Amino acid sequence: VTRIAVDAMGGDNAPAAVVRGAIEARSSQCELVLVGQTEVIEREVQAAGASLGSDLRLVDAREVVYMNDSPSVVVRRKRASSQAIAIELVKSGEVDAAVSAGNSGAMMALALVILGRTSGVERPAIAAELPIDKGKMVLLLDAGANVDCSPENLLQFGLMGSEFYECVHATPHPKVALLNIGEEEGKGNAAAREAAELLKASTINFVGNVEGSHMLTGEVDVVVCDGFVGNIALKVAEGTVDVMRNILRSEFERSRWRRALGAISRPVFRDLTLRTSYEQYGGAPLLGVDGVCIVSHGRSSYRAIASAIREAEDAVLNGVVAKIRTAIEKPLTPA
Amino acid sequence: VTRIAVDAMGGDNAPAAVVRGAIEARSSQCELVLVGQTEVIEREVQAAGASLGSDLRLVDAREVVYMNDSPSVVVRRKRASSQAIAIELVKSGEVDAAVSAGNSGAMMALALVILGRTSGVERPAIAAELPIDKGKMVLLLDAGANVDCSPENLLQFGLMGSEFYECVHATPHPKVALLNIGEEEGKGNAAAREAAELLKASTINFVGNVEGSHMLTGEVDVVVCDGFVGNIALKVAEGTVDVMRNILRSEFERSRWRRALGAISRPVFRDLTLRTSYEQYGGAPLLGVDGVCIVSHGRSSYRAIASAIREAEDAVLNGVVAKIRTAIEKPLTPA
Repeated sequence: VTRIAVDAMGGDNAPAAVVRGAIEARSSQCELVLVGQTEVIEREVQAAGASLGSDLRLVDAREVVYMNDSPSVVVRRKRASSQAIAIELVKSGEVDAAVSAGNSGAMMALALVILGRTSGVERPAIAAELPIDKGKMVLLLDAGANVDCSPENLLQFGLMGSEFYECVHATPHPKVALLNIGEEEGKGNAAAREAAELLKASTINFVGNVEGSHMLTGEVDVVVCDGFVGNIALKVAEGTVDVMRNILRSEFERSRWRRALGAISRPVFRDLTLRTSYEQYGGAPLLGVDGVCIVSHGRSSYRAIASAIREAEDAVLNGVVAKIRTAIEKPLTPA
Repeated sequence: VTRIAVDAMGGDNAPAAVVRGAIEARSSQCELVLVGQTEVIEREVQAAGASLGSDLRLVDAREVVYMNDSPSVVVRRKRASSQAIAIELVKSGEVDAAVSAGNSGAMMALALVILGRTSGVERPAIAAELPIDKGKMVLLLDAGANVDCSPENLLQFGLMGSEFYECVHATPHPKVALLNIGEEEGKGNAAAREAAELLKASTINFVGNVEGSHMLTGEVDVVVCDGFVGNIALKVAEGTVDVMRNILRSEFERSRWRRALGAISRPVFRDLTLRTSYEQYGGAPLLGVDGVCIVSHGRSSYRAIASAIREAEDAVLNGVVAKIRTAIEKPLTPA
């Protein structure tokens, strides 16, 4: 049985969406511990028509981490928060993983302080999962935890991302690429050029450089970059989706006829929104911290929470932390 | 009268689209010189039902620069190409500006060798224009010329972009922002943090950091970043537009009813494509070289060529090169 602590207070739709997602994801093989203000959570469990039991337990935490809380302040002053206590339960071995839809910077800072890094990892990373088509995902890391990265950091991101992808998406030897400004070898800034050499010599299935335009086409499984570039790439993608939706909407409002067309096409647009709402999918694993921790988007729906919980379960069952440790120990293929 | 040299052989649709664009853009106030294989160009002029004259002249150039030619090879071996000769005409004073839809890296390398840098400029930049709504553009620089940038380089990009935007878009004191991973001060990697300080102390209207998600919303006019980040941001935006179009198409193909809806909505999609085809707009000015040089997208239509020519005319009439020189000389507001 896998046991997972869920931060019931984190995220814009907490606790309702979190509690509902946990109810959806629990099973006889996966026991969940909801952490937070127990009276509030109990009310939500009742409202959902569910009941507590061995597969759905509560642990009290009085404090709440907010989205705009500074990670360093959370680490110093909010150690009694639901997010911190969820991670403490991983540390003490009471659970196998922690999931939160709260502040990702705070989650990373708490995980670093409470769990520490996996042996050999220089810089843990936040890995973002981007849906590219039904069921298929691209894992992009680092998504913002480390703004200045050495080539060695980038190599480790590739190793960690490859292990996670393999564990959670059941894909042996996932294709790992370096986000760069050209596909040819030797392209990019100094860090990228050196990182490409290291990745090429490593044990993983490195397929070379990928350009921004091909990041989301499904040609590669794992995309490696520093946290500055990764955060900007992610947000440009999100922003472009919004701009496209707005343009599409305005084009369907330009005349009475088009408005009528738009009205009867509404189910199509609903499906489009569903397929392009990054916040509605999976989670962002923290890779390189010594335990399974997954952050899901602040705007997570209950479905996204359930999916993050299932992902945490897969990561635990496949021993991703041990696999990352092994990969980091021997990163390069013997010559 | 403004005189502009146009590289008739550059771009995927050359020479037809280039010649047609030039015919469209010429006027009694704007004389154009088409540079390339004269017999080929003459045929295109005739095919377009136009004729040569003082407002549309030819200069012969035998060689052609191809999209995959390496810039350094072009500089050494293709000095008799249409792209090189268009820039030579700027150098000799026979024309006031050069426009090409060809290889942008080669154009930058040739401009650096033939025209040199504007006095005081450390690193010239390629500035990309992104359409965000009817008529409105965002200027993003550097779009890929410089992969490793110092804070001082980024300051100069801000100064140059501001002057160009003001000259060509008739916007006094355009809003300049730094592409970053958070809006708060102190965010970002080391170069970004220092650059923000310099931009804040400069003469331009610096409005602070902008995140990738807000780059294309029209809140800012000029976006500053290094060429590595800029190239990735641009290509992620382009790639996301393609992914969205594919998803939209597939959603309108999921059933017979939806296919019918899609068929009658075709004019809407055509307008959507028109509004989101980055290659169909404006040009990418090379800023910081000592002369007006504009590259337009390789896939430029004749409309895009005409628009790049008009932009070059505006840049010349408003003396953008001299304005950049002045701005670079005194970048900071006296304390």
